[in-house]
Amino acid sequence: MAGVKIVSTSKCFGGHQFVYSHKSSELKCEMKFSLYIPPGASETNKLPVLYWLSGLTCTEQNFIIKSGFQRYAAEHNLVVVGPDTSPRECGVEGEDDDWKLGTGAGFYVDATQGKWVKNYRMYSYVTKELIKVVEDNFKFVLPGVRSISGHSMGGHGALICALKNPACLEEYLGPDTEAWKDWDASQLVAKYNGPPLHLIVEQGSEDEFALLGEIMIEKLTDACKAASLPVDYRLRDGYDHGYFFVSTFIGEHIKHHTTILKS
Amino acid sequence: MAGVKIVSTSKCFGGHQFVYSHKSSELKCEMKFSLYIPPGASETNKLPVLYWLSGLTCTEQNFIIKSGFQRYAAEHNLVVVGPDTSPRECGVEGEDDDWKLGTGAGFYVDATQGKWVKNYRMYSYVTKELIKVVEDNFKFVLPGVRSISGHSMGGHGALICALKNPACLEEYLGPDTEAWKDWDASQLVAKYNGPPLHLIVEQGSEDEFALLGEIMIEKLTDACKAASLPVDYRLRDGYDHGYFFVSTFIGEHIKHHTTILKS
Repeated sequence: MAGVKIVSTSKCFGGHQFVYSHKSSELKCEMKFSLYIPPGASETNKLPVLYWLSGLTCTEQNFIIKSGFQRYAAEHNLVVVGPDTSPRECGVEGEDDDWKLGTGAGFYVDATQGKWVKNYRMYSYVTKELIKVVEDNFKFVLPGVRSISGHSMGGHGALICALKNPACLEEYLGPDTEAWKDWDASQLVAKYNGPPLHLIVEQGSEDEFALLGEIMIEKLTDACKAASLPVDYRLRDGYDHGYFFVSTFIGEHIKHHTTILKS
Repeated sequence: MAGVKIVSTSKCFGGHQFVYSHKSSELKCEMKFSLYIPPGASETNKLPVLYWLSGLTCTEQNFIIKSGFQRYAAEHNLVVVGPDTSPRECGVEGEDDDWKLGTGAGFYVDATQGKWVKNYRMYSYVTKELIKVVEDNFKFVLPGVRSISGHSMGGHGALICALKNPACLEEYLGPDTEAWKDWDASQLVAKYNGPPLHLIVEQGSEDEFALLGEIMIEKLTDACKAASLPVDYRLRDGYDHGYFFVSTFIGEHIKHHTTILKS
């Protein structure tokens, strides 16, 4: 398989959980991504793909280890692909100094500022290069039938990808806050003009980042309301921000994406 | 709660995944254990407990993060407790030098050799002290109704605990291989004389430790056959030794224990 190497493979719920690596031209480094193939996939039974974006500090591992999604992907016959969250070992000065910036924190934007410009292009990586790598290399993948979801900053990344335009940081995008609006889901909903979206936003009532004011979900839900863009907002009593929350509800999300992808 | 401290708590599948710590008198150190309370537990609806023993290199975290058992424990209304796999930070010379011995590798034996004697008493810890801590401190636990399971060396630990007598190492038990037999499930089955057991042994056909000859499951199944002790041995085609394997089949095990505990 040209340019794609197997890092690991384990059978799981009758299918196989793979991790692959490849040389990314967008990011100018070696990148890993996970790929789950359910038992029903074959060249004659090509399947749609759900792309999953993880949050700050994560790699391609967290979701495949902690969420238990494979049970549901096997049940619903869905291929699931999860990229790493940033370029790795690019030698950008300070890239390892802050858990909210640089390594493990690519923010799914295309950076426009200084030292970040060359490598930090996760938006283009996810929406163009990775899709091409997956669709070119895996014959059981149904080209063009795709869906996207994610957790934490990856949930926001999924929203901005779905909203077709490309919340981010002065570091990546410069001090002009007008420029940030192109990467802020709450701003992008007002401009959205495309086919119907099927947005779900799920949050625990004890989400520690929301309690600290670092996540302001009402900015998004208010903007959706103002733009008449339907959003299914689910506040889950007592749950926090972590993967025990994700594992509890991932089954409902896999089902949601399957229903749309196979309709 | 006398002597038991909460380390963490997260809501998960309607119940709560806790980690507690306490001062262990058997092990002479602070020990952590996980405890999952399903949504149906209360003082008036006391529930049985499944004890889960993890394998070499693990802590109390691996099972609660990777296996996805909470879904099934919530469904079947089962409390699940998972101890750490060894004493920690006891200052035993060389305890951190080998992944197969010492820290993270308590083997569920009571050591009889030199430097290990004081702290490495995981068998007594699991079968006596931990049970008492759980039953004394948590009012939603049905005393005396218990079951045991585990993965890898923890699976063997579960077997030796179930076989009432207490596979281990020269380091812990000395060079007299006769003494090892008291801690070897394959030997213990021949001596077992108690109420019926309901043993399941599950293994992947691609188990890397079996392929290397480090796990010899036929010694156990042959011994069970010779002793007319029923064992449900399940060889799963294509699965390896890891947690993707565990997550695939944990639902069936939770159901098995529930059926017996509630019959």
